[in-house]
Amino acid sequence: MNGPKSGLEVSIQLPETKTTAAESGPLVSQRPESRRAVVVAHPKADVMHAVLRLLCLLSSVTAVSVMATAKQASTISLYGFSVPLYSKWSFSDSFEYLVGVSAAVAVHSLLQLLINVSRMLRNSPIIPSRNHAWLIFAGDQIFAYAMMSAGSAASGVTNLNRTGIHHSALPNFCKPLHVFCDRVAVSIAFTFFSCFLLAISVVLDVLWLSKY
Amino acid sequence: MNGPKSGLEVSIQLPETKTTAAESGPLVSQRPESRRAVVVAHPKADVMHAVLRLLCLLSSVTAVSVMATAKQASTISLYGFSVPLYSKWSFSDSFEYLVGVSAAVAVHSLLQLLINVSRMLRNSPIIPSRNHAWLIFAGDQIFAYAMMSAGSAASGVTNLNRTGIHHSALPNFCKPLHVFCDRVAVSIAFTFFSCFLLAISVVLDVLWLSKY
Repeated sequence: MNGPKSGLEVSIQLPETKTTAAESGPLVSQRPESRRAVVVAHPKADVMHAVLRLLCLLSSVTAVSVMATAKQASTISLYGFSVPLYSKWSFSDSFEYLVGVSAAVAVHSLLQLLINVSRMLRNSPIIPSRNHAWLIFAGDQIFAYAMMSAGSAASGVTNLNRTGIHHSALPNFCKPLHVFCDRVAVSIAFTFFSCFLLAISVVLDVLWLSKY
Repeated sequence: MNGPKSGLEVSIQLPETKTTAAESGPLVSQRPESRRAVVVAHPKADVMHAVLRLLCLLSSVTAVSVMATAKQASTISLYGFSVPLYSKWSFSDSFEYLVGVSAAVAVHSLLQLLINVSRMLRNSPIIPSRNHAWLIFAGDQIFAYAMMSAGSAASGVTNLNRTGIHHSALPNFCKPLHVFCDRVAVSIAFTFFSCFLLAISVVLDVLWLSKY
């Protein structure tokens, strides 16, 4: 029963909708608006990205410097014999691996920080394109895995040092070498913190990829 | 400097886009097309997701079963004394950690595989919503980090076993216990393979998030 009525209405509304499209064109005006939103929404995310890079740089440099200065000499009595002990970070492959990966992450963070800051000073967006976003995502992800790996390998070895070795009745190495073990523990803590910061960077990258 | 230029472009484009909107309305017709693409594009990605889950399940179950059966008894001569050695996976915290994480990943993979297969049989998309995609991304990412951590911690300890301990003049544990060390090495290899598969799953999740 509404059929003819609505048909009449359509014929009446037709010129009306045409005029609104001619006047404002809402479908066309949306595109520049969303582009503006990309530019406006950046400063907050940009600052967060830059702060994350700075923190990650500081944390990984601390991890490297604390680990690279860890060494101590001591003695231990083993089955009645006094055995001289000298501990240095470079004696363990895991600690060398940690220093290498942390140094690489420090370089990566420094580079990204410099790029970010120079882009912010020029008022251009930090992530210019999708390909660039994928590249940053890949870099952050790989370095996060590497940091997790380095921290875990080093803490596995330290844990063994701390609790002694179960295979045979060997004593606890960390009692005579507590300064060395403490330095290593601090370095590992900063390594895991860097990994955590990189994981947050990855989430930010994915947020960017999912939005634009 | 681009401000006024883009403003001018918008005012020039306005009449041109108006006629296309009036004639065919391409912006309206695009939406059902992209929805159809979501449904059609799925089978390939679905199968890939399911295959990844199945491989990850097999790999993590292998890692657990090989590690959980690793034990060996032997003797070692230390400073002239014959010291009995008995090695079991549960003596090392790192190996226990690896078994725990691998078991958790196996459960996660099995659950995801069951969900995927049941959704594929019902012909519904594997990832129904953005929130679900973020949840899967988070799960895969966390388990990938955990697997990387477990594999690295265990391989740090094994490496120490294999090369001997540099702190003091201790012998190589892996010579008398080579069966044990080989089993551990196989288990670690499967752990890293699971981690690699999870990392690919993460990339697939991010691809989904970036597309839809």
